[in-house]
Amino acid sequence: MSNTSKVCIGIDLGGTFIKLAAMDADMKMFGAIQVPTPSGSADTVIDAMVAGARHVISANNIDRSDVLGVGIGSPGPLNRARGVVVASPNIPSFRDIPLRDRIANALGLPADLENDANAAALGEYLCGAGKGVDTMVMLTLGTGVGGGIVEKGQVWHGSHDFAAEIGHMIVQPGGLPCNCGTRGCLEQYASATFLAKRAADAIRGGRASSLSKLLAQKGEIDAADVNTARKAGDDLAAEVWDSAVYHLALACVSLERLLDTDLIVLAGGMTKAGDDLMLPLQKYYCDLEWKITPQMSKIVIATLGSDAGVIGAAGVAWQAFGKR
Amino acid sequence: MSNTSKVCIGIDLGGTFIKLAAMDADMKMFGAIQVPTPSGSADTVIDAMVAGARHVISANNIDRSDVLGVGIGSPGPLNRARGVVVASPNIPSFRDIPLRDRIANALGLPADLENDANAAALGEYLCGAGKGVDTMVMLTLGTGVGGGIVEKGQVWHGSHDFAAEIGHMIVQPGGLPCNCGTRGCLEQYASATFLAKRAADAIRGGRASSLSKLLAQKGEIDAADVNTARKAGDDLAAEVWDSAVYHLALACVSLERLLDTDLIVLAGGMTKAGDDLMLPLQKYYCDLEWKITPQMSKIVIATLGSDAGVIGAAGVAWQAFGKR
Repeated sequence: MSNTSKVCIGIDLGGTFIKLAAMDADMKMFGAIQVPTPSGSADTVIDAMVAGARHVISANNIDRSDVLGVGIGSPGPLNRARGVVVASPNIPSFRDIPLRDRIANALGLPADLENDANAAALGEYLCGAGKGVDTMVMLTLGTGVGGGIVEKGQVWHGSHDFAAEIGHMIVQPGGLPCNCGTRGCLEQYASATFLAKRAADAIRGGRASSLSKLLAQKGEIDAADVNTARKAGDDLAAEVWDSAVYHLALACVSLERLLDTDLIVLAGGMTKAGDDLMLPLQKYYCDLEWKITPQMSKIVIATLGSDAGVIGAAGVAWQAFGKR
Repeated sequence: MSNTSKVCIGIDLGGTFIKLAAMDADMKMFGAIQVPTPSGSADTVIDAMVAGARHVISANNIDRSDVLGVGIGSPGPLNRARGVVVASPNIPSFRDIPLRDRIANALGLPADLENDANAAALGEYLCGAGKGVDTMVMLTLGTGVGGGIVEKGQVWHGSHDFAAEIGHMIVQPGGLPCNCGTRGCLEQYASATFLAKRAADAIRGGRASSLSKLLAQKGEIDAADVNTARKAGDDLAAEVWDSAVYHLALACVSLERLLDTDLIVLAGGMTKAGDDLMLPLQKYYCDLEWKITPQMSKIVIATLGSDAGVIGAAGVAWQAFGKR
């Protein structure tokens, strides 16, 4: 049986939006939509996901019998074996929700559940920066720092679905306190949010900076503000940015030593800085790298942007239900 | 066809000894021998390996047709695809040696090549501390710090056979200089050799310690000496030991976050200290751990001792050539 007309549906559940799309056997996405994530009960969120999936199928004239299954990317922690979202910090109503089976039953289609960061990594592996490589690790430098590890198309889940918590590698012993309860986690240095918070905290603590006016006006600053101030010669901004890049490079060296992947793919808000991130990062990475062998893991920016998650979610379904 | 009488041969090539054994389909080792590693040319080393394998076969009345293949654990770096030992610091004559095919041709048996640290990890996974678990990471705290990552029986090799260089994770940014050309590598803190060297260097630099007499007498001290002095109240020894344990705990936390394995298995010289290592390590590990979920990766001491490598090498052959 040929898969030429077969599709899988991907659903990427986020705290703000639900993204949905179809994907054909050539891993080509089509019919993508996004709907706001309802702020109410878990039921309303699940209803929105189901309605969205039905819409993707009907709006694109997909024959119901051609849909092989649904892949769901969800914030976690998850229990994948049971298909359950254990908790989800940004969707408070989601606690011990059997999301996989709820979606499968409502749509009458097989479904599979994956951590959103892993789904995004799989998306980049299948269709983005990682296309054609053997192994890859992805770091999403956003609100926190998320991660995903992919080898020969397979996500590394670990024994309890908790692998690739790259944001909580300890990169600075005794360093900045992290929300997770320890100190020195990568996420405290290299996430877009915490980087900006670090600058804001310093200013509120009395540190002089050209950012203080902006902070007073807006009540907050973001990573892009810090980068702009840094380029205009602000010392505090330069310090915070440099620390982010340095600690990210430390993590990349440890990841290379441990996983020896072809690629280290960066995504998320911080990567909007482009070369302002990548040039100093490559320099630190090269400096901090061992000298025994040439550098093996290349660091690149992800190419799918915010579509990585929904593409990866559809990829999860293809892996689970596609008979290629 | 039953495998009841079938065997594989494991060869563990070390800088000092070559260990060889047969292993049956139940992963039971028998007929183990060890011979000194010749210090001459690569040919003499290979000859000794071949002679040893022939001896294991004949001395145990193994029917030649029952031998499925040979697994070789070798220090690296290796090129596994080509079956070549690229270099081997402790066996200087080994440079670009096609060890797999040399052994296979000499014995007339299929052979497979694996990094020695990976082979040891696989040995513990198949027959030792990791028996029955899903995922495992092993750290060998010996001359350096070696490592191996195993998931569902498969070694994680990375894209260039350089994965699991756990000794070169950076655990202390800007820390002790490492032979690899960077600073703050785990191995500089937690290997038995470098821990002892650190104490000796401090004494030679004028630091007072009860170990100074021993150092003057023997010309060197080892990790066990440091531990003994620590227990007798020596400040320097306590400091060095504590730093080793602390940095090892930092690495274990990062490994847990990244790999989420069932077990972190410790092997090598440092583990001879038993509870003197494990009790403070468990305490640091617990303190440094995130508080979001209960601790998931247990830290345990390996159970196969110096047999892990040869058992794992035979396991490599079973994986490659066994039709179980």
